[in-house]
Amino acid sequence: MPNPVDKIKPAVRAIKAYTLPPYRASIKINQNENPWDLPDEIKEEASRRLAHRHWSRYPDFVPTSLLERLAAFAGWKPEGTLAGNGSNELIQATLMVCIGPGSRVLLSEPTFTLYRQIVTVMGGETVAVSLTPDFQFDFEAIRRRINGERIDLIIFCSPNNPTGSSARADQIRQLGQEFDGLIVIDEAYHEFSDQSMVSLLNELPNLIVLRTFSKAMAMAGLRVGYLLSSPDLVREVHKGTLPYNLNFFSQTVAEVACERYELLEASVDAIKAERTRLYGELTTIKGVEVVPSTANFMLLRTPVAPRLLFEDLLARDILVRDVSSYPMLSEYIRVSVGLPNENDQLIAALAEVIQSRTTAGV
Amino acid sequence: MPNPVDKIKPAVRAIKAYTLPPYRASIKINQNENPWDLPDEIKEEASRRLAHRHWSRYPDFVPTSLLERLAAFAGWKPEGTLAGNGSNELIQATLMVCIGPGSRVLLSEPTFTLYRQIVTVMGGETVAVSLTPDFQFDFEAIRRRINGERIDLIIFCSPNNPTGSSARADQIRQLGQEFDGLIVIDEAYHEFSDQSMVSLLNELPNLIVLRTFSKAMAMAGLRVGYLLSSPDLVREVHKGTLPYNLNFFSQTVAEVACERYELLEASVDAIKAERTRLYGELTTIKGVEVVPSTANFMLLRTPVAPRLLFEDLLARDILVRDVSSYPMLSEYIRVSVGLPNENDQLIAALAEVIQSRTTAGV
Repeated sequence: MPNPVDKIKPAVRAIKAYTLPPYRASIKINQNENPWDLPDEIKEEASRRLAHRHWSRYPDFVPTSLLERLAAFAGWKPEGTLAGNGSNELIQATLMVCIGPGSRVLLSEPTFTLYRQIVTVMGGETVAVSLTPDFQFDFEAIRRRINGERIDLIIFCSPNNPTGSSARADQIRQLGQEFDGLIVIDEAYHEFSDQSMVSLLNELPNLIVLRTFSKAMAMAGLRVGYLLSSPDLVREVHKGTLPYNLNFFSQTVAEVACERYELLEASVDAIKAERTRLYGELTTIKGVEVVPSTANFMLLRTPVAPRLLFEDLLARDILVRDVSSYPMLSEYIRVSVGLPNENDQLIAALAEVIQSRTTAGV
Repeated sequence: MPNPVDKIKPAVRAIKAYTLPPYRASIKINQNENPWDLPDEIKEEASRRLAHRHWSRYPDFVPTSLLERLAAFAGWKPEGTLAGNGSNELIQATLMVCIGPGSRVLLSEPTFTLYRQIVTVMGGETVAVSLTPDFQFDFEAIRRRINGERIDLIIFCSPNNPTGSSARADQIRQLGQEFDGLIVIDEAYHEFSDQSMVSLLNELPNLIVLRTFSKAMAMAGLRVGYLLSSPDLVREVHKGTLPYNLNFFSQTVAEVACERYELLEASVDAIKAERTRLYGELTTIKGVEVVPSTANFMLLRTPVAPRLLFEDLLARDILVRDVSSYPMLSEYIRVSVGLPNENDQLIAALAEVIQSRTTAGV
């Protein structure tokens, strides 16, 4: 009998699955979550609305009420809005409806690794353009690639994970006018950057903007994302999403969070203020280079090897992300902006570890 | 500028999206949900476990505790178990990792329409084998197709939606031994049929079993499904699922439901008893033919056109499923087994509508 695994696409078999070992620590600054939890008023209002909901009944086929609130919240049309089980589902659906064998997707690397994995599963090919040495999008290099060869779709993560760099609206506008494929902007961290490409949607019919509730919106545990684009594209991407993709609980909490965003805004402002403070204090530690960031995390280069630094910080109950396997980042770790006292502890621990490791000659 | 929709795969553009118009009625017997809600003890225990959970934090990358409970519940190994955002996600992931242009998937029709849609989105081709005139799986015809042409994967929905027919274990065993592709059995309704193919997993390395919490488990609103297969296949299908695909709330409720299944079993038994009663009473209505079912729904053929019957029942506050667009079913509607008083009202309304419509000569 043949091996059933032979029925799996070779490109899929070759993938090393996206994984994250289950480390635990009191200070968890490895996933760019909002360290302030979702405000109690939002949780309580959602619970009130859900009190009489039968758990055994399917969600609405089209979550009209959620789509209307998301659209109003983002400043776009409900018929150009799609909700998903995290923005991950919408990245997947977008790629699923347009990428197959022969398709070519341009990525600026280093970036979020899921894009490449999904393109590969769909049988497409990725074309990587490096960020500039100071981790900015290299629009000149991108332009050369799209003029020189076939590219069907370009994905930008802006602010970019894990570098924190952002594209500007004028750069995307110009590219969107020149390029005849689709441009996807993953705005998972836009709240921390004070800018968004949503205002370009009316000008660029080939633009797709993705958003998430997992970062600023403090709902990573609930898996809610949304997509904004022309109603024509939304209709097609919808065919790649699953019926009933969003459970009633997450839907309702997301609606309340949109209505009461002022309750969340305070934590976004606090994170931005802490980002400035953390950046300033980290740069004073001898040997540490910090990459300026428009998101709620930042890259650090230190004299200590990332894996050692990761382990030494974990031993001090601080969980950071070792990003040394990403292109360009072999000497870097990434830290999320935490609560003020968490940031204090990170600063102290980092100074201590670097002092100890560099004195020891490691 | 070219139309951005041209970047969507032609096969996707050709799909009419799976939709369900938003009808409302007091008696909702159109989606095969458990009409008894999830028991309060399960809801309360889940709430207790969730009280101190931060909503802003991601779920665990691998939901170990849920996988262990699902495996114990199903009688299979945790490393051969995968959890998803409804079984829909697992159908999609399975097809995503093995189906592309040139792949051929055999379906017994009429069946759940999502299979065909996903195969099409993935660029594959479906091969339809009709059920027998009494709506049973036609294993002879299936055998002729797999011997006569290339088939990569066979999907059975057993019990089959919308017909209620089941495959037997000996039939699947024999086919699984003869066929060198993958066999997917969607067991969404298995609890109502008192049989399962899980016991074949050890014998058939090419078998994948899908389960859902949306039917007997009374959690359609929460979107939980799971997949059981060999650890080797699970590892590959996992690459087609999304990281953090299952929110913490649904995960926790599903764990409690597994631990306290005795609380749900009472409703499953009641549904089976009501199925027998409903079948018996419906067959006594003049002109009505009822298809025997091993699930929590049944097909009805009446002298009234399905669309008219649907509308007349809706006018009486009863929502059923018009399945007349499915192959073989142009004269049928599908009704879920409801609460006893809901079934009484269906029986009375149906007798009344048929009497009135047939007397009127429609």
